[in-house]
Order: sequence, then C-alpha cells, then structure tokens
Amino acid sequence: MTGPHPAVARTRTAVRDELRDLPEGSLVLVACSGGPDSLALAAATAFVAPRAGLRAGAVVVDHGLAPGSADVAQGAARRCRELGLDPVLVERVVVGPGGLEERARAARHAAFDDVAARTGAVAILLGHTMDDQAETVLLRLARGSGARSLAGIPPRRGLVRRPLLGLRRALLREACAAQGVTWWEDPGNAVDGPQTTSAGAALPRSAVRHRVLPALADALGADPVAALARTADQLRADADLLDVLAAEALEAATTPSGLAVEALLAAPPALLPRVLRTWLVSAGSPAGDLGAVHLDAVAALATSWRGQRGADVPGGVRVVRQDGELRLDR
Amino acid sequence: MTGPHPAVARTRTAVRDELRDLPEGSLVLVACSGGPDSLALAAATAFVAPRAGLRAGAVVVDHGLAPGSADVAQGAARRCRELGLDPVLVERVVVGPGGLEERARAARHAAFDDVAARTGAVAILLGHTMDDQAETVLLRLARGSGARSLAGIPPRRGLVRRPLLGLRRALLREACAAQGVTWWEDPGNAVDGPQTTSAGAALPRSAVRHRVLPALADALGADPVAALARTADQLRADADLLDVLAAEALEAATTPSGLAVEALLAAPPALLPRVLRTWLVSAGSPAGDLGAVHLDAVAALATSWRGQRGADVPGGVRVVRQDGELRLDR
Repeated sequence: MTGPHPAVARTRTAVRDELRDLPEGSLVLVACSGGPDSLALAAATAFVAPRAGLRAGAVVVDHGLAPGSADVAQGAARRCRELGLDPVLVERVVVGPGGLEERARAARHAAFDDVAARTGAVAILLGHTMDDQAETVLLRLARGSGARSLAGIPPRRGLVRRPLLGLRRALLREACAAQGVTWWEDPGNAVDGPQTTSAGAALPRSAVRHRVLPALADALGADPVAALARTADQLRADADLLDVLAAEALEAATTPSGLAVEALLAAPPALLPRVLRTWLVSAGSPAGDLGAVHLDAVAALATSWRGQRGADVPGGVRVVRQDGELRLDR
Repeated sequence: MTGPHPAVARTRTAVRDELRDLPEGSLVLVACSGGPDSLALAAATAFVAPRAGLRAGAVVVDHGLAPGSADVAQGAARRCRELGLDPVLVERVVVGPGGLEERARAARHAAFDDVAARTGAVAILLGHTMDDQAETVLLRLARGSGARSLAGIPPRRGLVRRPLLGLRRALLREACAAQGVTWWEDPGNAVDGPQTTSAGAALPRSAVRHRVLPALADALGADPVAALARTADQLRADADLLDVLAAEALEAATTPSGLAVEALLAAPPALLPRVLRTWLVSAGSPAGDLGAVHLDAVAALATSWRGQRGADVPGGVRVVRQDGELRLDR
C-alpha cells in the first residue's frame, strides 16, 4: 500500500495541525471559492476532520461581482458536497462600489460570522497560501504601512484560521490534480487575464502576482515568496509586542480629560503613533480613514508645539492642546 | 533679483538643516562619485557650508572595479574643486571578490573613516536619495530581513550623514542642470546598461530600479517610492525600541555561565531572536553570516526542548542546553 501523493500529504498535515485544539464533535467550515487553493483545503479537511472527531462543512460566498458568479458558486458547492462536506452553504453577499478588494473582503467576513452563528461552526478555514502572503506584504509595503500592516495575513483571527499559509500555491494545484479534483480558474488571476474588474477598478494583486514578483525574482536571482512570508512573520511578532507596549503607554498617559503631553513625550517614538491611533479610533475616528498624515498632525501638538489651533482627523474628530493635555474638541 | 531654481533651493535647505548642529569652523567632506546625486550634494554644500561658518571639502573613492574608474574619479574631483570644495581627496580602495555591493560598501566606509581621521573632518555627507532608500527596502524585504534591516539606510550613523534622503533623484538632476553641473552617468545604472559587473556578479539594485519599481508603480497606479521610504522610517523607530528592549532582556537572562532558559521563555517572542543574535555575535559568530535558520535552531533549545544535542552557528560557535541554561560549547 502506497501513501497519498506528497502534495496531498502535506496539505492534510497542515490542516490536521491547525485543527488539533478543537473540541471533539465540533463543526468546521471551509470557505471555498472553487479555485484550486480552497478546493485543496476542502479535500484535505474532508479527509482529516472525521478522523480527528470533527464535523466538516463548507461555505461558498457569491460576491455577485462578475457575470456567472452564481454558477461558479454552485459549481464550488457541488464539488464540496462530492468531497463529503456537509453542510454546504452558498451565501450571496452585496458588495458596495469603490475600494473593491476591501469591500468584498468585508462582505465575505460578515457572511462568515453570520454562517458560523447559524450553524454553530467553531472555525472557518480559509485557503490563503504563502504566495497570497507575499503579495499582501508587497502591496502593503508599497502603500507605506507600518509593521502591523506589513505583518500581512494573520494565521488566525477570531473564527478564521488559515492552515495553508505555509504552503505554496503550486503545491495545492498538485494536490487537487493528484486527487482528481477539478477547479475553476478565476480569469482575474490569469497571466493575460483582465487587469481590471468589469467595473473598471484596478486589480493590483493580479499585477503584483504576475509582474512585480517575477521581476523581483529576476532581480534577486531567487524566488522571494518564502522570504516575504518570513518577513511578515517577524513583523507580526514585533507588532504584537509594540501593540501591548502602546496600550500600556496609552493607559499611562490617560487622564480624566485627555492625554498628558508629558507622558506622551516620555514614550518611545515608535509608540506615539500607535498610542494616538488607538485613542483616536476609540474617539470615533474610522480606523481605515486615519492615515499617517493625521497621526503626524496630532503628534505635532505634543512634539512640536508652537501654538497650533488643533488637528482635524476623519470622523469629525478634532484634537486640541490645553493645559498640557491633548483633548477632544467635539 | 530672482532666487535660485527650486530644485537648487530644496537641495540647499536639506543640507543646511543637516549641518545645523556642527561647531563653527569644522570641516565636512562630501563623498562624491561624480554622479548627479553626489554632485548636487557637493554643489549645495559648497554654497551652504561657508555661510554656516563651516569648511567643506570632498572625498572621491575609486573602487577600481571598472575600466577607466581612475579617470571617473579624477573627473569627479575636478568638478568638486571647480565648485570651490577644498580639500578634495581621491582615495583608491581595494575591493575583494564576491558579495560585491557589500564589499565595495565596506571598503568605501573604511576609506571615509581613514580620511576623516587624517583631515579632522567631523562629518562625511553621502548623496543617497529617497529612491535609493526605496530600492534598499525592496531588496532587503525580498531577502527575508527583520525590521532593523527593512529600516533601510539610516539618515546618520557615526560620522556619516545623508542630507538627501528626503529628496527624489530626479530633483537632484534638475538641481545639477540648473547650476550647469555636468555629471558622469554610471553605465551600471542605465535602463539598458549591463545587469552584471564586468566580473559577472548580478546587479540586483539596478534591476529593482528599472524593472521592479516600475512594475510596482504600474500595479498600484501610483509611485511607491515615498511610501517605501516612509515604511523604512516607521520600521527604524520600531527597531530602535525593540533593540533597547532586547538589550534589557539579554541582561536579565545573562548568568555567569550562559543564558537562563526561564528568562528567555519569559521574554516576548519578538525579542528572542534579537537577544540570541546579540549574544551569539558577542560570542564570535560573524553578524553577516548568522541567519534566521541558525537563530531558530538556537531558540528551539529554549522553546522546543526535546533533548537536542546542540546547535551550531557560524564562526565555530556551538550552543548547548545544560542545567536550564543555554551555554557556549567551545
């Protein structure tokens, strides 16, 4: 008797390791797009979960963004059922215009929460790979993000777990092929596929995948994906520690009426923008709109005080300096 | 009377700000390659320094790596003298084979130290730009480096200062042109120039400049250079703080005979590799050869102890676990 194909074995091991801490009898759902990564994940989970005393189902999200998306979703659901997953749910979500990738993501994750609540699932498994991680790091780097953002896609957050972050995309195609699982090829991912959505929005990830990463590999004479993923892991550990320290610094600076400037100036420079970000978000400034330029203006009220009138940040929040404190002026 | 060309004015302001803290009468040297960045720096320094009560000279390093390099160096020195810099020194250095960019850099910086000692210069000004910073970040990222390395080129280190890190390369060409300063065009920097040295070594920086950054700009629909430079600044602040914390953690873990495992396990995960790196380098392991794979193996003696025999790191240093401590086994 021969064992499974090596790509299949590695995928199963990754899933098995990720599910180890779940209580017996609980339900996990694979988020499946019908593409090779999430189908390889579905196949591995269908094999591993029952042997680990778990139930395994799937959720397929139809974003309704491309013609025929409902058919793609039904095809993915059918394959999941053929693999033995049960229940298999298809969720149609509505994605607003603008900032497409982010809004699609938000709609998808809201659907995950909703489905988990309805089914009692304790984990939603996503098929992101090491290649996805590398693309994310490059995209965020080029947008001027800090360590938290460069830390890329987290292996776990809330109910979401990503067992395949240590595996390459090519291996997952191998795993599918070895098991006779046929996948749907997203035209947005093809080398010569559309570089914009049907609505005309750019697909920067696709360009990073097919043009930037190959150019970088060429420049270095070596494939940079593993190194980029490793960078993300290191920066995630850094960001975790810096967030803890920033929370302590925020607490130390907090007074009944605002933040004590003296305490802010005593904090290490790396913590100041983190402290201010947390404070401003809790004051109602939307995290996604709060940029470095806003944090710099608020920080300047502490570090470069020369009688500024105040600093405005998104969400109609205004910060002023009074009596040696930064205060909200509503 | 009209003021100087805006590009000239911005270059002079950057240099003036960088020299503000130097004592009157002291000597600064511009490191000049004859290229547009360092010639713009030379021109700005020749204008600014005497008005700030400083003396300004130049040092031209001839790496001897390309045919005609001595002529290029003499040409650069002549232009520096024409700009009024004095003294102007030409230093011939010897660069060993292999790891070319790093060795050339090491030879250059040794020459700077030497020249500063001979002339009494209090600062060496280098012409690195925001574009150089962005290229450095991308190169290091793709090699899997941590925050310190991603922090890129520091604005100051030792005698070296880099006044132009906030300016774009294109602006410096404008500044040269506006002042009638003609520059030498390094064929290794040209879009269609050689992608390897005459010795056959790859020139990854040139490929990043001419292929990766344009591909990234294309993917994002925006020039990523300023964002990459900003990322470097943020990560530099992070790395500064994390290095301080790691030094404290190292001190806390140090015993007369090694490092206490219990103390290492109590340190935040982000600090462990930093603590071990400092410890191993001080034990004689060459910093440049000590990679993540070595740090991981040593860390595993603390975090995943299952009776390993030890871990070998470069420089003939071997680490073993004994009596609840990591110890050097020589």
